[in-house]
Amino acid sequence: MSTGPERGLRYADAGVDIDAAEATVARYREIARRVQRPEVLGALGSFAGLFRLQGYEDPVLASSTDSVGTKVLVAAAAGRFDTVGQDLVNHCVNDILTAGAQPLFFLDYLATADLPQAQRVELVAGIGLACEQNGVALIGGETADLPDLYRPGDYDIAGFIVGAVERSAVLDGSRIRAGDALVALPSSGLHTNGYSLVRAAFGLAKGADAAHDRAVLGTVYAELGGTLGDALLAVHRSYLGVLGPLLGRIHGWAHITGGGIPGNLPRILPEGLGAFVDAGAWRTPPLFEVIQRQGRVADAEMYRTFNMGIGAILVVAADDAAGVLAALPESWALGAVEARAAGEPAVRGLPLA
Amino acid sequence: MSTGPERGLRYADAGVDIDAAEATVARYREIARRVQRPEVLGALGSFAGLFRLQGYEDPVLASSTDSVGTKVLVAAAAGRFDTVGQDLVNHCVNDILTAGAQPLFFLDYLATADLPQAQRVELVAGIGLACEQNGVALIGGETADLPDLYRPGDYDIAGFIVGAVERSAVLDGSRIRAGDALVALPSSGLHTNGYSLVRAAFGLAKGADAAHDRAVLGTVYAELGGTLGDALLAVHRSYLGVLGPLLGRIHGWAHITGGGIPGNLPRILPEGLGAFVDAGAWRTPPLFEVIQRQGRVADAEMYRTFNMGIGAILVVAADDAAGVLAALPESWALGAVEARAAGEPAVRGLPLA
Repeated sequence: MSTGPERGLRYADAGVDIDAAEATVARYREIARRVQRPEVLGALGSFAGLFRLQGYEDPVLASSTDSVGTKVLVAAAAGRFDTVGQDLVNHCVNDILTAGAQPLFFLDYLATADLPQAQRVELVAGIGLACEQNGVALIGGETADLPDLYRPGDYDIAGFIVGAVERSAVLDGSRIRAGDALVALPSSGLHTNGYSLVRAAFGLAKGADAAHDRAVLGTVYAELGGTLGDALLAVHRSYLGVLGPLLGRIHGWAHITGGGIPGNLPRILPEGLGAFVDAGAWRTPPLFEVIQRQGRVADAEMYRTFNMGIGAILVVAADDAAGVLAALPESWALGAVEARAAGEPAVRGLPLA
Repeated sequence: MSTGPERGLRYADAGVDIDAAEATVARYREIARRVQRPEVLGALGSFAGLFRLQGYEDPVLASSTDSVGTKVLVAAAAGRFDTVGQDLVNHCVNDILTAGAQPLFFLDYLATADLPQAQRVELVAGIGLACEQNGVALIGGETADLPDLYRPGDYDIAGFIVGAVERSAVLDGSRIRAGDALVALPSSGLHTNGYSLVRAAFGLAKGADAAHDRAVLGTVYAELGGTLGDALLAVHRSYLGVLGPLLGRIHGWAHITGGGIPGNLPRILPEGLGAFVDAGAWRTPPLFEVIQRQGRVADAEMYRTFNMGIGAILVVAADDAAGVLAALPESWALGAVEARAAGEPAVRGLPLA
């Protein structure tokens, strides 16, 4: 093989600068070091993250992967890079918490064409912060430099979580009965779903006009008590802190993500059961009304796209509902589990038609 | 909240068609059902994948995340959607196998603006095939519809794997000594690294001219025994089958991915050790020569970007090298581990300057 001339192609010319990437990786490691757990083994920088599993008699591993959807575009349009990492971790933590699992470790995947190194570090710092808050080890990750696949300044981010639960404590729907009560916990905003509809409604982050995007996001709405951007970028809540201590007494819980209440509540219900949800039991937060007005969105479309202010729906024994409501000051009684015949809707009570 | 007029925004207008996505998810489930393992619990479609961990005394979980880089762009330009899923799984399997771990389960993340449903299913079928070949459960995944983040027809795909290994059997570099022998195993091609350089060299998959891309990829090279496209899309090898039975006798092994031999071999070497690699020990496969010629790439840049025909480098006891070479018919003696003083290069013998 002959040595090419000096002007031959270098990998950096192709849009991939390995030296810059390595400097950023060193920053990632500083972040990861702050959120390790004693079970984490081995040197950082190896090909695999290693986690010693201890303290379980019959462990079941619970895992999930997610992204934050086009919330990344809204965040980039607002010039914010510190929140979406938190969204990502909290979303994943909630997903495995629906099985009753405590989170153990997290890995992130960040893909971009040219996102500046400082912003990459900000994104990973957001991940690290939420890992710390949830007691999760940040055990690995991958940053993929993908020239031509992403537009300048764009990126995507995905997360992967593993947790564990004793087999006898798995929440798999088998404890849910007709007559159980439904209890709602508030969301902090849109969480990570419905951003493409929001962007269509406001003509936002469509890749055209940065000044327009900044003006839209900077608009103050009295009913939001601040800017649209701040309301849209509110961090997806983790329910680990409030639900963790209650896992032994709840029969199941649904994380209200893409597809809203009708798309998610039925996922945890056994065959032959449905849910009655009292649409009058709560006041939809103003953010959803602002979006509905702006996009002239039908009610049914709103309920099938957004969480409408509810991030978690718990299923509890009817005679324990008062106790659970008392233990969760933010919660409210939402409805009940009921028998459902074949062909009947899985969720009654919401304006879904 | 008032019902919006009929012409109000629907989520599908925003580029997200939940009904079509649900039909595709049903196809994903068929694929996943074929590659389950008995340890997988719970219904598909829940928020978390559940895997019962059994048979380990002191289990260490090994995990990794990866993508296939801009190999997705080359594959899309060639109209191939069945191979990159295999690349992804095999890459991840290899990464945790470097720690001595057997793979248990896999989750995929697929992000796109508008990839047709049939092609999404093809991608996931490729993942399913490789999961089956490696004995890995496909336990979950996420398809993110991200209008405006990806160009028409583009997509990205990432994978997450978890495996396990007894703590006493973890390959963490501690068995590696100066004087150990290095043994090479061939790659099947580029595996999943260096595609942006290849694309720059051939002006390929830069988003401009589909006919040009097809002509480039369809060009037959005598030394490749076929088209450039077929050579570039050769599936990343899994080394589980050949290395799995040898894990007890090897001191470590490096997966040669992004950064080539100099970027990966040092990752498994303890402080104070380096490697001598005999550049004359193997003939670089013709594909790398075709790329070097086309891009007039310097030797050093080639070795720092591509695997150059070596996908795995094993570290074995010097007196066991002959036995390992005999057990692996494709393998060859590559060099040795040696003492290294501070400031000396981690890898000697390759044209890296």
